[in-house]
Amino acid sequence: MSTQQHADAPAATHKYDPNFTQNVIDTCGPNTSPRFKQIFASAVRHLHDFTREVDLTPEEWLEGVNFFNEVGKTWAESNGKRNEMHRMCDLVGLESLVTEIANYVETEDPNYAPTSAAILGPFWSPNAPWRQLGDSIIQDAHEGQVTYMHGVVRDLVTHEPIPNVTFDMWQASSNGKYDFQDPAHTDNNLRGKFKTDDKGEYRLYCLRPTAYSLPTDGPSYKFLQAVDRHPMRPAHIHLMVTHDAYKPVVTQIYPKDDPWLATDTVFAVKDDLVVDFNPIKNHPPTGEHTGPGGPATRELELNIVLAPKGMAANNADPVEKK
Amino acid sequence: MSTQQHADAPAATHKYDPNFTQNVIDTCGPNTSPRFKQIFASAVRHLHDFTREVDLTPEEWLEGVNFFNEVGKTWAESNGKRNEMHRMCDLVGLESLVTEIANYVETEDPNYAPTSAAILGPFWSPNAPWRQLGDSIIQDAHEGQVTYMHGVVRDLVTHEPIPNVTFDMWQASSNGKYDFQDPAHTDNNLRGKFKTDDKGEYRLYCLRPTAYSLPTDGPSYKFLQAVDRHPMRPAHIHLMVTHDAYKPVVTQIYPKDDPWLATDTVFAVKDDLVVDFNPIKNHPPTGEHTGPGGPATRELELNIVLAPKGMAANNADPVEKK
Repeated sequence: MSTQQHADAPAATHKYDPNFTQNVIDTCGPNTSPRFKQIFASAVRHLHDFTREVDLTPEEWLEGVNFFNEVGKTWAESNGKRNEMHRMCDLVGLESLVTEIANYVETEDPNYAPTSAAILGPFWSPNAPWRQLGDSIIQDAHEGQVTYMHGVVRDLVTHEPIPNVTFDMWQASSNGKYDFQDPAHTDNNLRGKFKTDDKGEYRLYCLRPTAYSLPTDGPSYKFLQAVDRHPMRPAHIHLMVTHDAYKPVVTQIYPKDDPWLATDTVFAVKDDLVVDFNPIKNHPPTGEHTGPGGPATRELELNIVLAPKGMAANNADPVEKK
Repeated sequence: MSTQQHADAPAATHKYDPNFTQNVIDTCGPNTSPRFKQIFASAVRHLHDFTREVDLTPEEWLEGVNFFNEVGKTWAESNGKRNEMHRMCDLVGLESLVTEIANYVETEDPNYAPTSAAILGPFWSPNAPWRQLGDSIIQDAHEGQVTYMHGVVRDLVTHEPIPNVTFDMWQASSNGKYDFQDPAHTDNNLRGKFKTDDKGEYRLYCLRPTAYSLPTDGPSYKFLQAVDRHPMRPAHIHLMVTHDAYKPVVTQIYPKDDPWLATDTVFAVKDDLVVDFNPIKNHPPTGEHTGPGGPATRELELNIVLAPKGMAANNADPVEKK
């Protein structure tokens, strides 16, 4: 029961035991990893400060205990398919914040920055098929607008196009469901991996995306009701753009006229990720779309900027940082 | 996407989006209860500050997601009998802190304060039997020391004894297990409720308590290993002392010579709760102990001080406080 104040700890500004929080932190044994100890100390300090700040009552605390037990129960009962704790983190902005931190790059030219990151979400697949430039990712019938999507991937520093970039994308269908969620979809419907050509270009057919609702049952929806919020995500396409020599970009893009942009329930919208789906003017050299939905009616030009690996980035040595 | 800083929010002292946290807080709809909004805002602010403070990586965040899903799974798979989230809160001092806050009373005489509170823990029973003054709570065989426990319950303000107080107590047996946990115990072994007499006195037989370990499996034990901590609680007896006209005292008492006092893994020890189990000198008027273990060898005198209801206490109107 140490009574010394920790050098880094701010002086207590409350009426409760001033040594309590530091005593909890100081219980870490000598075999705690330095990084775990750093995370534990900060988490305990903020948890206790929160508790004292709102004078959390025993009844409120027990309500929280029950809530988080239910969150894990939802995960267990779905055999891990419904990751309710992941969703809860999204609903309070945590995944979006972690994503911002992981992708933070200091750039010298404020007008030329790497493409912003957005959350990965629970629907990426490591098994998406490789497709040829100009191919379509649309395998099944839909009620959406076929879109010709194309652009160039460039180097943040040299502004030169980057060949051989992996352009991995996935999206929900016009009913708001991913192939994982809808038995009516064939495997890998609306997923595909492409490689940029010698000019750093990619081109493919996809759907103009459709806004959808998160599940309206379970603990996460109870939470949304408690804070009087809607469960909608704006329409979006997921992207994972990677190359061995560059920092990967995992992101999402959103149609400019989507009504849920300003209130995305998982806080993943960034200004440079909002794009125009225009009436089509150009076509790929491989020809018009012949799959479900027929010829394309929309066109999306999206250029991507990647930062070379080794540029000032976060988490190079997290233990030393603080 | 409001860009205004909240009046109460401290200016951002980090390099990340300075409006992100306030934007998340501002999503609360008009039907959010004021108290829930207060708790949500403080929780989000501290969660985000923690995340930025340690530059939490996506991998670390996902490890946390998995951990808390496992916590809820443990609860679900035990049909709610093993409340792992409750235990996790205890291991980081949260239940102890909530207990301190709920029982905070400003007293004018620093030498005469209400008996300190300690956490309720998961083993209280609403069905403990009423017993007569001088009775024993020991029903089953044990290897502990039979103790004559007695004392007076007094009023914080008048210092007068309080008759008709309910003195509810429970403890683990000498094998470290409560009746709930051990099929070899009869129901309500080592539990009992007593009423103080006209002189505010209670008296009973119990065991000198035995230190025990929390479970050494499951997520909570994984956490203890990560922070290199032992799973021991000091020996203790649980008390719940109540009377309609007084603030209830839920607490625990600990033998002075217990080796785990300074490092109680749930942070429930307070100085005034550490007591002496002396060689026996007095006996109750109802006579010597005749149950399992035979005559008492130890004596514990414990006096209790209750604060009248209505004295300055926390949480009278939590919404208005902040």
